[in-house]
Order: sequence, then structure tokens, then C-alpha cells
Amino acid sequence: MKRVCSPAYSLTLRLRSPSGTEIFDSVASVVGAVGGEVKSVKVDEKTAERAVCSVSVFARDVDHQRVIVAAVRAVDGIEIIGAKDDTFACHEGGKMEIAGRYPLRDPEDLSRLYTPGVARVCRAVSEDPQQGYRFTIRCNTVAIVSDGSAILGLGDLGPLAAMPVMEGKALLFKQFGGVDAIPICLDAHEPDEIVAIVKAIAPTFGGINLEDISAPRCFEIERRLRDELDIPVFHDDQHGTAIVVLAAMKNALKIVGKDIASLKIVFSGVGAAGVACTKLLRTAGAGNIIGCDRAGAIYKGRGEHMNPAKQEYAEYTNPEGLKGTLADVIEGADVFVGVSGPGTLGVDDVKRMAKGAIVFAMSNPDPEIQPEDALPHVAVMATGRSDYPNQINNVLAFPGVFRGALDCLASSITEGMKIAAAEAIASVVGENELRSDYIIPSAFEPGVASAVAGAVIAAARKDDVARNPAGPVTDVDDLMGTTHG
Amino acid sequence: MKRVCSPAYSLTLRLRSPSGTEIFDSVASVVGAVGGEVKSVKVDEKTAERAVCSVSVFARDVDHQRVIVAAVRAVDGIEIIGAKDDTFACHEGGKMEIAGRYPLRDPEDLSRLYTPGVARVCRAVSEDPQQGYRFTIRCNTVAIVSDGSAILGLGDLGPLAAMPVMEGKALLFKQFGGVDAIPICLDAHEPDEIVAIVKAIAPTFGGINLEDISAPRCFEIERRLRDELDIPVFHDDQHGTAIVVLAAMKNALKIVGKDIASLKIVFSGVGAAGVACTKLLRTAGAGNIIGCDRAGAIYKGRGEHMNPAKQEYAEYTNPEGLKGTLADVIEGADVFVGVSGPGTLGVDDVKRMAKGAIVFAMSNPDPEIQPEDALPHVAVMATGRSDYPNQINNVLAFPGVFRGALDCLASSITEGMKIAAAEAIASVVGENELRSDYIIPSAFEPGVASAVAGAVIAAARKDDVARNPAGPVTDVDDLMGTTHG
Repeated sequence: MKRVCSPAYSLTLRLRSPSGTEIFDSVASVVGAVGGEVKSVKVDEKTAERAVCSVSVFARDVDHQRVIVAAVRAVDGIEIIGAKDDTFACHEGGKMEIAGRYPLRDPEDLSRLYTPGVARVCRAVSEDPQQGYRFTIRCNTVAIVSDGSAILGLGDLGPLAAMPVMEGKALLFKQFGGVDAIPICLDAHEPDEIVAIVKAIAPTFGGINLEDISAPRCFEIERRLRDELDIPVFHDDQHGTAIVVLAAMKNALKIVGKDIASLKIVFSGVGAAGVACTKLLRTAGAGNIIGCDRAGAIYKGRGEHMNPAKQEYAEYTNPEGLKGTLADVIEGADVFVGVSGPGTLGVDDVKRMAKGAIVFAMSNPDPEIQPEDALPHVAVMATGRSDYPNQINNVLAFPGVFRGALDCLASSITEGMKIAAAEAIASVVGENELRSDYIIPSAFEPGVASAVAGAVIAAARKDDVARNPAGPVTDVDDLMGTTHG
Repeated sequence: MKRVCSPAYSLTLRLRSPSGTEIFDSVASVVGAVGGEVKSVKVDEKTAERAVCSVSVFARDVDHQRVIVAAVRAVDGIEIIGAKDDTFACHEGGKMEIAGRYPLRDPEDLSRLYTPGVARVCRAVSEDPQQGYRFTIRCNTVAIVSDGSAILGLGDLGPLAAMPVMEGKALLFKQFGGVDAIPICLDAHEPDEIVAIVKAIAPTFGGINLEDISAPRCFEIERRLRDELDIPVFHDDQHGTAIVVLAAMKNALKIVGKDIASLKIVFSGVGAAGVACTKLLRTAGAGNIIGCDRAGAIYKGRGEHMNPAKQEYAEYTNPEGLKGTLADVIEGADVFVGVSGPGTLGVDDVKRMAKGAIVFAMSNPDPEIQPEDALPHVAVMATGRSDYPNQINNVLAFPGVFRGALDCLASSITEGMKIAAAEAIASVVGENELRSDYIIPSAFEPGVASAVAGAVIAAARKDDVARNPAGPVTDVDDLMGTTHG
């Protein structure tokens, strides 16, 4: 796989020159000659004796970073006085902090925000637990819970190494949904343990976002927590992905003019994301889905490489009982959904799909098939990558889903809320904007999360999981009232 | 107990008058006539037709708030257009939020802060867990863990109603120590459960602050967590109190010219705070401490009203084996330390203490003896209240203790670190400033937390619990080095 220069491997070089700033003009060509990309040059300091500038450079990987540094160092008249890896630099000290929402300036503030005044608020919440949604962070705070067992594509790195991902997720929650999210990385692996811990910490939070917990444990953990807690529990790897896939599918079907009920859909990968996408597509009307794992198509009665999750999967998929490899069952398929690994889908496979084929190849960073290879043969192509059109990105879903769920005090996330979220995401792309390379908005397109939140709230009300806000607190809300009466 | 007007019961009244602002001058006298205190009057709006002002008023309690509102309402020419309880108002929506430490402006930022760049940071932490202290919030984040079983003086209100206190504590951590603290209120009560949960969530945090967990369970929970975790575990109700009591004691002894080793010290209350204060005073040199509970003095061999914690307490206290009530054993005592309940100590008891008596009556909000009653008979008087001199306030200790512990990556908080913290707090009051009504700095006095942190770091190094920061990460720190070589 050819690697391209990426912001994930960007460098900032601080360069000093005794001879003016002209010399810095040569940096771009030197960097370009070894395959790097100069993104910006900023002159920080300029005197008669010297000039200092900061150069931002994208590299392909760590070795390439070193090659670039060496090439710049070799330029006469330039001294490197600093070389910073921008990715590590924006994780230094952790990526988030706590901020107070009310000023704490003097003993009077202290006696309201803390003792003795806070005792009044504690009593109010104790007498009516719903007041917790008014007077504590529970009203806007979600736990991002992971055991670190399925970190990105990296596998089981454990809870400590999961933190950078969960903190990043917390930034996305805040930026796109205004939701305060707190990473809780667990040194625990048994479903029983994880369920018990999450139940115990639940009073602190208004919702639980499960993250990067490996299949099939994630299914049991989520199911039990959904049953036993009265706040939303949402495994983003499952349902976030499913919502965005459904959103993309809705718009892709408009382009190819097909109906979801008539589709033959083939999945590569039946882990957390594959199972959840299958279920949500079925709820949305898809009838003929065939899932494949490494052993090929999953069908009722398959004897080998099965587990309870796959047994269940076989019950509601593959109605024709197709057997064989992915290459066998892809024949005539309208849709391919890849949530597996790189290179799973061949060009020959794509050629044998139905006319107007839709390919979502979401393995990251390397998709099931390269877009360049698939595009000549398909009507719509999407990936999980930000550097190709049609990125299927969970960040389109989870901030708005939790924003909506928190705002209506939803007790859970229903299928109806997920479908409403998918429709809201799809609707951000106007009918007249819709193109085969623009079926889904980008993460930074404004209005996505609020559209999702609004749709989620409406669906929560319809599904009767929205709850009323707490009633008045006598102490605080009655001051005008009782004296009137 | 006579109640005074308090900021904990402050109101903000919005008043409208059709007849100019002069009428507002009458509000202070009307409020004063019913016993309230006007703290400020601010004219918000003034036109020919009307004037609007905001009046801040301190009341004694909720009923008094209503009396004040009624009295103002009765004034001709004034209309109340809003009445807000300031305490509840500054808890609305919770008191804290998450803030990102690095900007997330565009897809390039996203690819460094989140995928794909974040995978590089995860791998670095996975290869060397110490990097978690460099690249995750662990370096500056503490969990405030409570089961809500001993909330302030209110008792067992449960985890939900504990949240307002824990959020307030988080504000104090940030404001005074720059420490990010996250409330974790647990729906769990058995020590086994609480220990298991805290161990499981520990990878997220650089320290654990236990809070408002009832005795004697708090002793076992803290001991086991200290043994089993390699991050600092600190039960603030115990050790925060003990540190500040020791600090106050050191300065009080300078005033009365006594040595800690020669003192007879009587405690009222042998719960979490009483036991921890006793232990730390002993470590600091006190030899003769007699603890009293509701059944009187605790002595070796006492048969009734004992539990394992009190049995242990009897082993190392009361060397003369005194028996009887508090009133019996207070005879000739140099120091009284109250961590029990209001009115436990009588004026007659104080009169029978030794010359130069020191009384720390820390029950909150109502002390073991009112300062007005004790002062004629004692040399130094301290309470837990902010409205009397010499407030023994944990906020003098915990922000600096954790600031220091986090900064030197301490694996635990040792006795030496606590004593160093107490000495640092005491030293904030200069020798020439020291007076019987100024033995301890106020919470808002600048420099307390940094003095404590510095002392804690030095003591951690001495006690060999400080750890070295993580070594270089090849990817990030090697860019200059390898190309040099």
C-alpha cells in the first residue's frame, strides 16, 4: 500500500539562519525532493543578525520524518534549533481538563458552591433524585467506558493505552455535541466485572458510551447494562457505525434508484460493527443480508468457526442459505459493506456485483478495496478515511445522539432514535447537492449534531423513553409563588 | 443556637419601580427591619418610565427568605419581578465541565488528536506505561470517590445526592491546586465492592481522593487500596483534617509555649477524622491522647460500645487508662480536639482544662462549644467555620498535597509527606504575624497550596516514593538526536 504524507506525521521545524529569510525559500524544495510536503512557513523573528522561522512539514511515517530532518540539516546557512512531532505535541499533559462553570472568588462564593450552602442542594437531590439532572453534572455528562480490548485497529492494548483515544473522543463529544464526556478506562475484562463497575459508577453520569470493547463480550455487556440502568447505554462501535452506514445507504440508494427492501447486501466482518449495522439495516427494511467472516458466508447450520453471536446472526440473515467464500456470495450483490480488514474485496468481486453497485469499504486505515480500484466498477464508493470522499465517520452520530438523549432525559436509545439519527444525517445533504461523491456530510459540516439531536428527541418522545424534567424545588422555585398565595 | 444571616441563604431580588431609583434606598431598611442583610444594590436599567435593580440579600434560612420577599413586596412603588436563591442558582446544570487543552479546528487537527494519529500515542503508552503520565490526563487527574455514606453532617444520602459536594470539591482542587478532579459517586457500599471498583478505574487517574465514606469502612477501604495501587490514595476526611489540625497545633503551641510531647490531648469523636488526627499527632510527637466517644473515654479493656477500629485505638492511646465521661477526663487537659457534634464541650469543662488551654471545636456547622463561650477561658480557639477566626479547613491541605504528589509521580502519600504538608501550612503564618486569632491561614490566602506541594515533593523524595518521569519516546524525542549521531 503506497503511503502518503499525512498530518498524523507532521513536524514543526524551527530553523535559524544568519543570512536573512530568503534561505527559507529553499526549504520547500529540499523537503519536496525527499518526498515531504511543506504546509506552512512562518517567520518568527527577524533581525539584522539572524532570522528564525517555523516550518510545518507533513511526512509519511517516523523514518520519513528523520529523512526530512536530515535533508533540511544539510542545507548550508540553515540551523535546526528544534524539531517537534506535532501529533505527540498535542497529547502532552493529556488533551482535556476540568473547568468550573461558576466563579469561586471569595469566601461567600465558597459558602454557596461548597459548605455550608451545598448541603441544601444535597438535601434537595436526596429528596427527589430527578433534581440530580438539574443541579449536578449528570445533566450533561457521559462516561466513555473502555477496557482497551479493541483499540482502533490495534487490538488489546489495555486500559492505560486506551486513554489517548478516549480523551480524543471526549473532545469530539464536547466540540460537536456540547456534551461533557469523561474517559473511564477499566482494568477489568470479564463482562460480569464490567457490568458491575459501570452500574456502580452510573449515578455520576447521564449516559454511558461504551467504546472499543471487543466482540462478542461487547454484546452481553451492552445488553445487560441497557436492561439494568435507566440512563442511555450506547456502544458506539456498534450503533454509531450502524447509524452512519444507514445514513450513507439512504442517500446512496437515491443515487442508484433502488429500494432497501430489494437489496442483496453482503457484509465482510460480523464483529461489533457488522452485527449492529446488519440489525439496523434490517430494522430499516433490508431483507437479504449475507454476512461473511474469515470462514466465508454465515448460514444457519454452519458447523465451524461459530460462536453464540454468530449463531444468532445466522438466524436472521442469509435467507437463501448461501454458502461459500465472500467471492462466491458477492455475485449479483447490490451492496458491499466492509467492516473487516484491508484487501478483503477484489476488483473481480466488484465486477461481478449488480449494476449500480454500492461499496462501503470501512476498514481503517486501509480499506477492503482501494477506492481507485473500485471506482470504475461501482456507482457509489465510501470509506472510513478522511482523505477520500464519503467518509463514514461515527462523529456524525454520537455527539448528536447523546445531545438529544441528555436533553430529553431519555432512559435509553431505541431503534427508532437510531433510525431518526440516520435520517437526520442523510438529510443534511440536500437533494440538489447529492452526488455519488457526496452522500454524507463531513465531520466539520455545521448543523449535523443539532439535526441529529432534534430527530433523536422527537423519536424518544414517540418511543416513550423521554422523561420530564424534575419538578420545582420548594426552596428555590417557591420564593415568588408562596408569597403570592 | 442563634442563627445568623449567611451567604448560603442569599437571595437576589429583581425589583422594578415606575418612579425612579430613589425608592430602592428604602429596601435596605425594610429588609433590615425583618432581620435580613442587604449586601448590594445594582441598578440594571433606568429610563423615564421605569427603573430595575438587582438586590443581593443574606437571610438566615428558607423561611426567613420568604419573610424578606414578603416584606419587600409590601413596599409601595416596588414590584418584585424575580427572586433567585443564589445557592441553588450556582449549582444549576452542575458546577463543572470538560474543556479541551488543544484546538480542534479542522480535519488536520482531528487526524492528530484522534484517528489516525492518536494510534501512535496509544502505541507509545502501550510500550511504556510510564508514558501515560506524559500523554494522558492521568498526569493531572484525581478521582474523588464517594459512596455518599457520610455526606457532610447529613449522613448517608447516597451517591446521587453526594454529587454536589464532590463537584464542589473538584472546583477547590482546580482553583487552589490546579488539579483536575473528577467526581465518581458509587452505588456500592461493601468495602470489597468499593475496593474492586476503584482498582478497576485506577488506570484513568493519577490519584484517588476518598471522600465522605463512613467509618469504620473507610479505614479498610483506604488501607487495601493503598496496598494494592501504585498511585496515591488519600481519604481526605481523615488525612486532610489531620494535616490541618497538626498545622494549627504547631502554631498554637508556639503561642502557649508548650511542647507537643508534654501535652494531655482529649478528643471528642473517634470516627474517620478523630482516628487520623490522633495518629498524625502521635507521629508528630504527642504521647498522651485520650479519645472519647458517646460512651466516654476509650481505654484498653473497655467492654462496651467497641469495634475493631476502637479496639486498635485503645492500644496506642490513653496511656494512663483514664475512664469516665469527657467531663471527667478533660480535667487538666492542654488541648481539646472536637470532631464530633454540637455542644459536646461545656463551659465548666473548659474552665477545668490546664492553663493556656487550646480548643479546636470543629463540628460543623455548630461547634462542640461556641467560641463566644469558650474564649474567656482558653488561650487559642479554632473552629471549622469560615465566620470565626482560625478556621480548620481541609482545603488548606488536599490541593497542595495532590499537586505535590502528582508532580513527583508519588506512588503513595507517606506520614512524612503529611507532616511536611502540616509544617508548610503552619509556616505560611509568619512568626511576626502569629496571634491567638491567627494561627492558620485562610483558604484564599495565596501561596498555601504551592508551599504544601513543595514540601510534599521534598518529603516524597526523602521517603523514596517519588518516581522518575517517563523516558524519551523514540518517535518524538529522537528527531534531533538520531540525525546528529
